Amino acid sequence: MLITPEDLAAIVADVGLDALMDESIEEFENALHDGDLDVRRRDGFATGRDGAAEGAAGGAGMLEWMPAARRGDTVALKVVGYQPANPRARGLPTVLATSTLYDCRSGALTAIMDATFTTALRTGAASAVATRHLADDGSKVLGVVGCGAQAVTQVHALSRVLPLSRVLAYDRDPRVAWSFPGRVAFTGLPVDVVDLDELERRSEVLCTATSVPPGAGPVLTGLELAPAAHINAIGSDLPGKAELPAGLLARAVVCPDFLPQALVEGECQRLAPDRVGPSLAEVVAGGLGDSLRGLLTVFDSTGYAVQDLVVAETVLRHARRIGVGSPLPTFTGAIDPLDPYCLVRRATSAVRAGAATR
Amino acid sequence: MLITPEDLAAIVADVGLDALMDESIEEFENALHDGDLDVRRRDGFATGRDGAAEGAAGGAGMLEWMPAARRGDTVALKVVGYQPANPRARGLPTVLATSTLYDCRSGALTAIMDATFTTALRTGAASAVATRHLADDGSKVLGVVGCGAQAVTQVHALSRVLPLSRVLAYDRDPRVAWSFPGRVAFTGLPVDVVDLDELERRSEVLCTATSVPPGAGPVLTGLELAPAAHINAIGSDLPGKAELPAGLLARAVVCPDFLPQALVEGECQRLAPDRVGPSLAEVVAGGLGDSLRGLLTVFDSTGYAVQDLVVAETVLRHARRIGVGSPLPTFTGAIDPLDPYCLVRRATSAVRAGAATR
Repeated sequence: MLITPEDLAAIVADVGLDALMDESIEEFENALHDGDLDVRRRDGFATGRDGAAEGAAGGAGMLEWMPAARRGDTVALKVVGYQPANPRARGLPTVLATSTLYDCRSGALTAIMDATFTTALRTGAASAVATRHLADDGSKVLGVVGCGAQAVTQVHALSRVLPLSRVLAYDRDPRVAWSFPGRVAFTGLPVDVVDLDELERRSEVLCTATSVPPGAGPVLTGLELAPAAHINAIGSDLPGKAELPAGLLARAVVCPDFLPQALVEGECQRLAPDRVGPSLAEVVAGGLGDSLRGLLTVFDSTGYAVQDLVVAETVLRHARRIGVGSPLPTFTGAIDPLDPYCLVRRATSAVRAGAATR
Repeated sequence: MLITPEDLAAIVADVGLDALMDESIEEFENALHDGDLDVRRRDGFATGRDGAAEGAAGGAGMLEWMPAARRGDTVALKVVGYQPANPRARGLPTVLATSTLYDCRSGALTAIMDATFTTALRTGAASAVATRHLADDGSKVLGVVGCGAQAVTQVHALSRVLPLSRVLAYDRDPRVAWSFPGRVAFTGLPVDVVDLDELERRSEVLCTATSVPPGAGPVLTGLELAPAAHINAIGSDLPGKAELPAGLLARAVVCPDFLPQALVEGECQRLAPDRVGPSLAEVVAGGLGDSLRGLLTVFDSTGYAVQDLVVAETVLRHARRIGVGSPLPTFTGAIDPLDPYCLVRRATSAVRAGAATR
């Protein structure tokens, strides 16, 4: 099945953004209880050598693959490009992604879909799950540091699990900050563009979602945070990249999405392994949230391939239900599995036959 | 660009199988001189838990990803399924593969193609490069152990670089062995189906291309090989899988395609690192072939992601030249890169506009 951005739009139109976000939140939380999932740490190539455009945005790009498997059934592989120069240089999102699904039994490709929208969706959903378990469930004020594409789904997702009455927004680029209220207007929440000090002082829950280059962080001061604040740190996803100050990490309970990855790319890379708190899966499956809720907590969200597997499966299920998506071309006819040239000879005949009947 | 099996067939029909193989051989040899390529070791999930079908073939399946980059330009990722039960259980090749290419600069998907045929093609091409540098260039008798899909391209590839006059074929499954002459008839070479002893005694160059399960090898005895024989061992690609006896490896010069991978999955896994010979790239770029040609040599071919990058680029170049392949759907219109929901809202409008004009 080939699922295009237009097919995704048809699914969103049918399901509705709120319902799709709610479903993504529930499916991800369910997956954290699922023992039949297998995940590998993200790996990738640095891709920032291209000169002017990348240099202008100050940071290098990455192209990474994120593998996850539902054992005996499906392997999902997301390839995700991170290129801070994309918005200005190309009018494209910083994060562009493609998901492919494979049948574990045969090895065949079963689906390919653009995963740019679903990456934003699932990153929001992950913060919602973390927030539901780690934040005060009466939290009304959400602060967002970094107001790019990912911040939109952070606000949307948290609005589904908290009784929010106000969003505080900060971005070091004023144009990005001032366009933010319009981009989240669909939530109905009032948004105040504020300075960082005010945001840190007034927010009960925070999300950091920046493209701060490795070595240039942190982006929060952490000086005036509420004692039981909860922070979803979603931007730290490269070695050396850090959004939170070390002093804040030292006094918080830091819950990684995927420890082996967070120790390399996440906020956890600045913590000794024995200083890292329980993983989100341990919090959720172990019901640890109640014991942590009065403390300063951090969800170290580096991006977990299970999220991508689950959201791709959700999209595929809806695509089948409403009948969108195109079949992927595959081998046709009685191929000889022992003859690789048969594949192209058969297909040649099919092409010729097709041409003759057109 | 989406390149279907039918598009591949159109390319093969235009270029010709011999010319495509020759080009694959030359392009891979050129790539071994190219300092701008970057490769990661293959990793994957074991997928053999599915029961009856897999169990019947005796071995577990794998689903693996193979990343390679042309720095600053392209990342190629091949996902390859290895499932020995496929031919009997599903009428599909043991090895099914899909290649995707991405633009390093933006992170966008640029091409997707079925890579089942190209995997067989490039594995043949790699053996041809190794054979050209390591075997006696007057070798006339080729022995093939394991007569499945990969053996077809081994014979084809070696027929392009050696003055072959005869092929000896052995497979432990007589039906596979006896169907082999027909599958390589297009080369014009006479094929004798023989027993393993005769094959080892008479062959000047050998290819092992079996699905022997991990722990069940070796498949050669190595007892009566010619002193300067050259062996392309292409089947060893899993931890514990071995086609060649340890005694043969100990007295041969073993040249891996990609050392970090060969030490884990290849014949090299049974050699101490200091007993491994030069890599194929070192042989080719360093011109070491002449000094090794009188010795017993082994090309330990685990499958090298550079081969997949190069053959995918070759296919893409031909697709553009002759005008086959379909454009991949992408974002259209003036999207807001800072608003992930804009992607689906815009597309929704496009879908509606499209529906209205249809």
